[in-house]
Amino acid sequence: MSAHPRLSLNQATIKYAPLAEALDVAREAGYTSFGAWREPVAEVGLDRAVELVKASGLRVSSLCRAGFFTAQPGAARQTAIDDNRRAIDETAALAAAGAPGSAPVLVLVAGGLPAGDHDVVGARARAAEAIAELAPAARAAGITLAIEPMHPIFAADRGVVSTLGQALDIAESVAPEVAVVVDTYHVWWDPDLAAQIARAGASGRIASYQVCDWMTPLSADSLLSRGYMGDGHIDFGAVTRLVADAGYDGDIEVEIFRQEIWDAPYAEVAARVAAAFDETVAPFLS
Amino acid sequence: MSAHPRLSLNQATIKYAPLAEALDVAREAGYTSFGAWREPVAEVGLDRAVELVKASGLRVSSLCRAGFFTAQPGAARQTAIDDNRRAIDETAALAAAGAPGSAPVLVLVAGGLPAGDHDVVGARARAAEAIAELAPAARAAGITLAIEPMHPIFAADRGVVSTLGQALDIAESVAPEVAVVVDTYHVWWDPDLAAQIARAGASGRIASYQVCDWMTPLSADSLLSRGYMGDGHIDFGAVTRLVADAGYDGDIEVEIFRQEIWDAPYAEVAARVAAAFDETVAPFLS
Repeated sequence: MSAHPRLSLNQATIKYAPLAEALDVAREAGYTSFGAWREPVAEVGLDRAVELVKASGLRVSSLCRAGFFTAQPGAARQTAIDDNRRAIDETAALAAAGAPGSAPVLVLVAGGLPAGDHDVVGARARAAEAIAELAPAARAAGITLAIEPMHPIFAADRGVVSTLGQALDIAESVAPEVAVVVDTYHVWWDPDLAAQIARAGASGRIASYQVCDWMTPLSADSLLSRGYMGDGHIDFGAVTRLVADAGYDGDIEVEIFRQEIWDAPYAEVAARVAAAFDETVAPFLS
Repeated sequence: MSAHPRLSLNQATIKYAPLAEALDVAREAGYTSFGAWREPVAEVGLDRAVELVKASGLRVSSLCRAGFFTAQPGAARQTAIDDNRRAIDETAALAAAGAPGSAPVLVLVAGGLPAGDHDVVGARARAAEAIAELAPAARAAGITLAIEPMHPIFAADRGVVSTLGQALDIAESVAPEVAVVVDTYHVWWDPDLAAQIARAGASGRIASYQVCDWMTPLSADSLLSRGYMGDGHIDFGAVTRLVADAGYDGDIEVEIFRQEIWDAPYAEVAARVAAAFDETVAPFLS
């Protein structure tokens, strides 16, 4: 079997597979790239994860995810900053362990409103400050901090950075090495999408392109309303053309949170992802 | 009992009350204004609805809702346009029947992507075309078409107009009498909210201000994740100040879709709404 040379299987799509098995699934399905998550890495320990990645021969396309730094100044915020520093080191180690072409990219999710806090403007400012604080460590480690704007459905409880334009405002205000993630699920609805993807490309700030579909009706757990590309409402041709025209030529991760997919055999999922990618995304890559 | 002089009870907050009972509930709870919906009006017929509104002594703050005109050219689109023309007439009749200070405002929701259609840009363009087509009839009837941008959670299946900025782009491109609705539930997350509310105010385009809270976790039916102001995540002080500073001095509707609230006694809901309004919104009105 082979998969598209730019296709990366994100660990979250086969969420229940331990790291070793997830890497095997990807390789056996013909993938050459893998998007890692911190939790399965932590389960085996970073040293063992590095060994597994080396042995897999796969590229590492990103590490998901750190961030969650909207707490008010104090212990909770410091805990978050410390955790993000560890994530930077993990990203560097895993990218170095991956095959050539691995991307030293750490995906950052801002986090939601602290309990009882209604000030989304303030929470966004704190997220920007945290990213600024982390930028020197990222620079020193040679990794890219990639801010992932999240669909406004998550603004209250998961990610207060809601648009690509806002993520770029933060990135540009902080440092050259801070970039953004374009995830179709989060950004497809944005009326300003074309302009903001072009803007991100012009400053070399597209660090990751992730794809999955927006399904309706939403799942009862709305976090899990993602689906295979082509099963929902997103125009992957349109978004992929924008990303390609903006100069992004890195790996493209398929990251799907959906209970039925998590419950399916991993190999079947990997094959289905590769087929959906060939049909919906690959034809629009320049 | 009395309620704040600018507070309007939107029919949808007591969804199961027939029109006559809903008007009674509002008046008995001390409201002076009522936000009407088309379905309960249709249940009794427009003539009878006009009588009921006249007898109530209440202002009518808006009629919800028409729109849903994203279909491709053809029979479905024509049906939608015809229905919107009827809604314009209904709005004029109800506003004329309401007490002085009634607002001849018809709330428009764009509608979602037609089945199988992935082109959100095209659907938005068709919505704008439909509004342009309806503008002369609205002008002739002396009513304001008010575009309600919907939270991006609804972009696929209910409303492709996703931001206040986008609604204003459409309004400005169409005609002076086309305006917008600022609904906290739909717009609270928008990083550009302050600028867009100011922009709407500067051209006199805030036709309606609606309030309710964004609750998490989302309800299994995410449409019903609204709540009483103060129970969720929205900063009503911040948004209300923006709307007041933008010059809006009309009625403010409380419109809550939530199963527990629909299932509660109407009078209890009306009282609770008035109390929440006094606490979260009223202090920030200029």
